[in-house]
Amino acid sequence: MADAHLRKFYSQSLALLTDFYQVTMSYAYWKAGLDKKESVFHLFFRTLPFNGGYAVAAGLESVVEFLDNFRFDESDIAYLSQLKDTDGNPLFEEAFFDFLAGMRFSCDVDAVPEGTTVFPYEPLIRVKGPLIQCQLLESPLLNLFNFPSLIATKAARICMAAKGDSVLEFGLRRAQGIDGALTASRAAYIGGCDSTSNVLAAKLFGIPVKGTHSHSWVMVFDDELESFTTFAKHMPTSCVFLVDTYNTLKGVEKAIEAAKLLRSEGHEMIGIRLDSGDLADLSIKARNMLDASGFPDARIFASNELDETIISELKRQGAKITVWGVGTNLVTGKDQPALDGVYKLSAIRDPGEHWKYKLKLSEQMKKVSNPGILQVRRFKAKGINIADAIYDINSPLDDEVSIVDPFDSTKEARIKNSEEFEDLLIPIYREGRRVYTLPSLHDIRKRTQEQLSSFPVGVKRFLNPHQYMVGMEKSLYDLKIRLVRNIRSEKAHDYIVP
Amino acid sequence: MADAHLRKFYSQSLALLTDFYQVTMSYAYWKAGLDKKESVFHLFFRTLPFNGGYAVAAGLESVVEFLDNFRFDESDIAYLSQLKDTDGNPLFEEAFFDFLAGMRFSCDVDAVPEGTTVFPYEPLIRVKGPLIQCQLLESPLLNLFNFPSLIATKAARICMAAKGDSVLEFGLRRAQGIDGALTASRAAYIGGCDSTSNVLAAKLFGIPVKGTHSHSWVMVFDDELESFTTFAKHMPTSCVFLVDTYNTLKGVEKAIEAAKLLRSEGHEMIGIRLDSGDLADLSIKARNMLDASGFPDARIFASNELDETIISELKRQGAKITVWGVGTNLVTGKDQPALDGVYKLSAIRDPGEHWKYKLKLSEQMKKVSNPGILQVRRFKAKGINIADAIYDINSPLDDEVSIVDPFDSTKEARIKNSEEFEDLLIPIYREGRRVYTLPSLHDIRKRTQEQLSSFPVGVKRFLNPHQYMVGMEKSLYDLKIRLVRNIRSEKAHDYIVP
Repeated sequence: MADAHLRKFYSQSLALLTDFYQVTMSYAYWKAGLDKKESVFHLFFRTLPFNGGYAVAAGLESVVEFLDNFRFDESDIAYLSQLKDTDGNPLFEEAFFDFLAGMRFSCDVDAVPEGTTVFPYEPLIRVKGPLIQCQLLESPLLNLFNFPSLIATKAARICMAAKGDSVLEFGLRRAQGIDGALTASRAAYIGGCDSTSNVLAAKLFGIPVKGTHSHSWVMVFDDELESFTTFAKHMPTSCVFLVDTYNTLKGVEKAIEAAKLLRSEGHEMIGIRLDSGDLADLSIKARNMLDASGFPDARIFASNELDETIISELKRQGAKITVWGVGTNLVTGKDQPALDGVYKLSAIRDPGEHWKYKLKLSEQMKKVSNPGILQVRRFKAKGINIADAIYDINSPLDDEVSIVDPFDSTKEARIKNSEEFEDLLIPIYREGRRVYTLPSLHDIRKRTQEQLSSFPVGVKRFLNPHQYMVGMEKSLYDLKIRLVRNIRSEKAHDYIVP
Repeated sequence: MADAHLRKFYSQSLALLTDFYQVTMSYAYWKAGLDKKESVFHLFFRTLPFNGGYAVAAGLESVVEFLDNFRFDESDIAYLSQLKDTDGNPLFEEAFFDFLAGMRFSCDVDAVPEGTTVFPYEPLIRVKGPLIQCQLLESPLLNLFNFPSLIATKAARICMAAKGDSVLEFGLRRAQGIDGALTASRAAYIGGCDSTSNVLAAKLFGIPVKGTHSHSWVMVFDDELESFTTFAKHMPTSCVFLVDTYNTLKGVEKAIEAAKLLRSEGHEMIGIRLDSGDLADLSIKARNMLDASGFPDARIFASNELDETIISELKRQGAKITVWGVGTNLVTGKDQPALDGVYKLSAIRDPGEHWKYKLKLSEQMKKVSNPGILQVRRFKAKGINIADAIYDINSPLDDEVSIVDPFDSTKEARIKNSEEFEDLLIPIYREGRRVYTLPSLHDIRKRTQEQLSSFPVGVKRFLNPHQYMVGMEKSLYDLKIRLVRNIRSEKAHDYIVP
């Protein structure tokens, strides 16, 4: 089921789903004989979305489907070969196309599994291999990782606000394109939503599908009660009556009337849905009406521009809502519609030579990238995560690991390496061959919950969350600082690993 | 070329790209014998995005590709047939699947062409036909219209801020999914961008493709100058040097050095790119350095979280930037990542009977929908648009048309119907047969510019734009008010057209 997802995209090659400069640089690398170089790039983000305390990684399945199919086809070559330079001459020479057409994915890829709780600056995907392949993958990997991780994070927040209530994702109509909707439905499920309204997403990914009826159903009839009783007659086990087409509380009365009829036929109404007005007040009144009429088990669904803040606030006000329908704000990540993931070169070498570690400088320390070949170790104590350490896999960790906050070097911690720990990046490809079996969507969703449950509550709160400690292993931090100083003083642009 | 766009999606049926309640309602309509009813729905939005004064319609091409292929296939039926109700019985009965499988699109569709300047409450797509077909189309039509219109509008604003400078769209890496990127590239071009970095979008849609090199190119070398001269050697006609990898102004010096070498080989550097820091200050300094070194024609590219506000501000500060690279803020519509398009029932009838006009009530007048079968007439005087009138096609317009602001009935205007005018909705399908030829993307882009040029400047400014007059034709307005009163007093739920 799962791999049917991107199949629709793969009826043609997606090799050109990249920024043009990746192609022009590849050409120049190739012309300059640099295509034999081996490089290491890491994908990471810098800012937690939604002013939150954590993020949920998602998108690896799409990345895998992309890499499994990474190949330039005839139409790609045909497109590139008709591009001209400003003088009207072909931009690329013929032999380059043979190179591209013959290129086979041969990188090592390590990545964090979907559903993993992650933090800024942690390497989330590491690609090691021929320079040109690594370079071409920058744009698609970012595209395929940033968006689902953003939405899985948003969904986790919304579900946390709903405190165990059902959350239904129904953002299709205002999502950013077809794939914006499908990918969001999948990511929302990973983040904790328990169903989607998007039938195609349900079909492709095996997500439970849910839905009720809309205002137009009510409007088709001359009378609201008739619209409910007609729906009840034909969908007797699926009745969630939308009560706000004309007047909400009168609508509730009619829903109760229809529910009584339904009960006389041996079926129970599932509930009612509120889609406008003061949801706190209306839900309390509706709850009382339902209870007083013998429908204490009828559920109250609510929708209308909901997000984690509004849901929290409605709960604080005593709203009697038990199912939350969330659309636009979830599937677009409305208050921050992009995760700021980047993909940076951190090491390069000629085949058989020593690695040269690299970083990109910036006036802001926050934008200076990390050198090395990186991994993240997550330390636990009594089942609760206490800190993550970003370290270089070529410098073995001591029994006691010193970690430093890279943006405040006065913050240090020492952690026994013998404690319980987990290395977050796991092997996905070795020399281009996939060594990873994609987990089921169900298992990914379970992982999200398990991961989140291992963090202190402070990390998960909405307002001023506790900042979870993510440090750089001390020797890596020292190397970075030395390298920054060397570049600033133009002594050296890299660190050659002995 | 154009129709290759969605082909990737159509390797399988997209009939299930809809909300589940559309399917359950369709089933209940069908069971209740209401599937013979004929209905009219309109797609419109309520709020101008980005606090702006106008929007640009886009997405019709995708809508057409969707409708041209609208059909339930075996896998859709197989999916629906395994769904169970809460009692574990099949949710839908077998004969319904025969109905779905045999359903052929047979609606009339009228819509505004892509590139049209549009305003809140104007009907933008009108669908008239069998109730079930109209209902099923709600979600996909909204998905396919909302997002591209949002991005075309954002692009028009950004290009307006750039005042004739080149604007390059390069949002792929942070767009909302693959289609979020592709659709955004196309919409950005419609809105006025002159190129994209997304090679696949360029290939599919025929958009000019542009790109330079990234920081990683510079970092691969031991020395920044070497990185520039190597690029220049192999891409001599495409040199835009990225100068901020280590130190921006030193980077400019090295770019000049490389450009001199390039000139000695008979080629000219196109320019330099700034991607961080104080873009106003750095661009002025870089301009002076380039001019003083004999490169007055070298262009200065800038990127880094740009949008229309920042571009306007940089121009105000005298920034010497002539090419603007815009990514995330453009392709996600960052400050408002969803257009609030809706799709509402406005008329229904049994075959051969009189139309019953319908509206959806709300406590807020802004959310009460319009009844009728609607069209928009745009009146001009001396080539400048003066007002739009929403009117019912069944009540012929007088020689002098009275229009009313539906949210402030004291605002009225009278317009000679003999003036120059244009009806915005044009026929796209008749009884399911397409009667519209898709224009080229180039022509759509031209239409955007022509349309915008026919509005007073006040409508197009960013801060407190002038509110362009969109009124309801007086008799339609009166009908709406009467209908609202009737529903509120429970006298009637519709207006039967005589």
